[in-house]
Amino acid sequence: MSEPVRIGLLGRGTVGGAFAQLLAERADAVEAASGRRPELAGTLTRSDGDFGELLERSDLIVETIGGTDPARAYVLEALRAGRPVVTANKQLLAQHGEELFEAAREAGVQLRFEAAVAGVIPIVRVIQESFGATEISKVFGIVNGTTNFILSEMAATGAPYGDALARAQELGYAEADPTDDVTGADAAAKMAILARLAFHTSVTLDEVVYEGIEKIQPDDLAYAKELGLSLKLLGVAERREGGISVRVFPCFLYPGHPLAPVEGPFNAVMVEAPSITEVTMSGPGAGGVQTASAVLGDVVSVLAGEAPLPDARVELPVVRDVTSSFYLHLEVADRPGVLARIASVLGDKDVSVKSVVQRGAGDDARLVMVVHECLESRFAAAVDELAGLDDLRGAPRSIRVIEEEFV
Amino acid sequence: MSEPVRIGLLGRGTVGGAFAQLLAERADAVEAASGRRPELAGTLTRSDGDFGELLERSDLIVETIGGTDPARAYVLEALRAGRPVVTANKQLLAQHGEELFEAAREAGVQLRFEAAVAGVIPIVRVIQESFGATEISKVFGIVNGTTNFILSEMAATGAPYGDALARAQELGYAEADPTDDVTGADAAAKMAILARLAFHTSVTLDEVVYEGIEKIQPDDLAYAKELGLSLKLLGVAERREGGISVRVFPCFLYPGHPLAPVEGPFNAVMVEAPSITEVTMSGPGAGGVQTASAVLGDVVSVLAGEAPLPDARVELPVVRDVTSSFYLHLEVADRPGVLARIASVLGDKDVSVKSVVQRGAGDDARLVMVVHECLESRFAAAVDELAGLDDLRGAPRSIRVIEEEFV
Repeated sequence: MSEPVRIGLLGRGTVGGAFAQLLAERADAVEAASGRRPELAGTLTRSDGDFGELLERSDLIVETIGGTDPARAYVLEALRAGRPVVTANKQLLAQHGEELFEAAREAGVQLRFEAAVAGVIPIVRVIQESFGATEISKVFGIVNGTTNFILSEMAATGAPYGDALARAQELGYAEADPTDDVTGADAAAKMAILARLAFHTSVTLDEVVYEGIEKIQPDDLAYAKELGLSLKLLGVAERREGGISVRVFPCFLYPGHPLAPVEGPFNAVMVEAPSITEVTMSGPGAGGVQTASAVLGDVVSVLAGEAPLPDARVELPVVRDVTSSFYLHLEVADRPGVLARIASVLGDKDVSVKSVVQRGAGDDARLVMVVHECLESRFAAAVDELAGLDDLRGAPRSIRVIEEEFV
Repeated sequence: MSEPVRIGLLGRGTVGGAFAQLLAERADAVEAASGRRPELAGTLTRSDGDFGELLERSDLIVETIGGTDPARAYVLEALRAGRPVVTANKQLLAQHGEELFEAAREAGVQLRFEAAVAGVIPIVRVIQESFGATEISKVFGIVNGTTNFILSEMAATGAPYGDALARAQELGYAEADPTDDVTGADAAAKMAILARLAFHTSVTLDEVVYEGIEKIQPDDLAYAKELGLSLKLLGVAERREGGISVRVFPCFLYPGHPLAPVEGPFNAVMVEAPSITEVTMSGPGAGGVQTASAVLGDVVSVLAGEAPLPDARVELPVVRDVTSSFYLHLEVADRPGVLARIASVLGDKDVSVKSVVQRGAGDDARLVMVVHECLESRFAAAVDELAGLDDLRGAPRSIRVIEEEFV
């Protein structure tokens, strides 16, 4: 067995803390995926620890401090000392990306930053690796969960901006000082990073024009509803005549748009190119464990060096009889007691009805129902028994239903 | 400059042909992204070329023949000869994955197969790399574009299955012999691959239970609409008590479900895990250039070996004045000629109105409109001039609108 890889963790806030825990829980999985076992070499916090000493003891640095000072100095020092770095720090990348990339290139070590943009959505990897040789024409999306929550709340309840913001703060989706989020500054930093990666050109943060959502009024949303539109804070980076445009602004979308249904604290990013048409990716935009999960993915990539081959390290039998909800369509004889007889067959098999519609009459009478989740073998047994009833004019038809509800 | 990397291409059908063209067009980009310049060493077709001879002249093999014979023998021989392989072949992976992985592992070379599942959506990379150490609980989605097109068509038009299939064939979304697609067999192969990757356990194709869409009747869709449901052919691989379940079946979804709005020949895949909540990815499920694009992404990854650092190889100025569509909200005086005066200001600036709603009366009269795409500076000039009109009771409010329409 090879030596464990010692990880020096900078910062122990929400993300850093979640990362330390995830790393401990998933050490076996990291080893299986990368061939190397990780262990925490130590943690540097504002009040505790010495960076130089931790660097000495670490093979890889994970930076979750946030902000540019002292994060920039630490990351530069780590790279120059030949240590790969994984960071979740969007401001650091947006403001000092070139300097960091240069330092990593000179030292010949990896610098990864998936968690800096769009939370757990692996957009950095996809743009850099899957679409690394693709002529991307446009990258755009919802890259700030706080503002998307506020706009969803305003649209759903008619609440004014201030009330929706207060609600977001109450639920932990907005910070006590929400300035960075609501002015669009946070989204601007993320779009600077995405534009940099997509277009292979230097983009500085002060070149990104941004507007926030503070001036949106409830009646803008009400009128927009009449026009069939939904409001999102969009970040857009695209090729335009003469160069590129990188901006953040509130914006209405028509209902068929892939980003229109993205509600609440979610993020979603679309990539467009002639050779791929478009790819859309969505998921939670923030959250300690989700961000830590993105950091862990980067750690695995650094350790693996190159693409892992699938290992078959566990033995899981394939289960065939599972539970499901069902739609059930019965052509029935139009006579008294039919529903009762059918319900009794279902009840005997512990199949419980969620909703039922009766349609038609005489030779066209039908019962169409949705039943709650139950073991498929039980449902099949119930259907077999139903098929034998005199009340049916044709074979029962059934189709599975996903009962799960999403926000 | 290093020697070019010689790529041996097997097959020159839709995907192979598109790949050869894309490789020629994007050779510079591949070199920039990977540090190595690719060139086509030669192409083997059914009627032309000798595999052993091509292998000898190639550093990397790209397999686009499809099917298992002779693809399996070629890929095995290439791997054993120490050549990395990129393939788009789902049947090969689903039926002989373990044998191929083993051969790649023994030879210490990469085997990549992004294009085998869900077209241009980089789901293989995301599961293997971003979520390589994540305890995935479920991978599911729409992995066959042909059937999704047919179901969308049936739902939209009320057409019976046979007519919708004929329409799909007419548009090139279904093959002359559609059996593999409509029976669910194609989706089953893809789900075997995804389950294999997500759960790190061997999954053979014959363990995947599948049903197709041939028996779906138009009135199932009509009744379902009344219940608020939409029908998709889903592939589902998930942990269940005692092991995993891997299946393909037609299935109703409630409207809030992230997969419910996926229409036409698109694919979409969701990954769920406690530490990531859920990530959804969608995009075109097939198409020559899209599949070739996924193959090219794999080629870049093989050549790059490890994560590329962002290069700033081009200089693109950031453009500030771009075109956009706008929503415009005007609180107006309720008197004759107002709309005419406003329309004339807009017309003078070449701003053209797409839709307008007049609301309220007296002190609450408003004009709410959407204007077509125009240069933002022109729109801003028009708004400035509007702001000076006596007809307005307050400052004009405007918000951008994305005019683009999606299917």
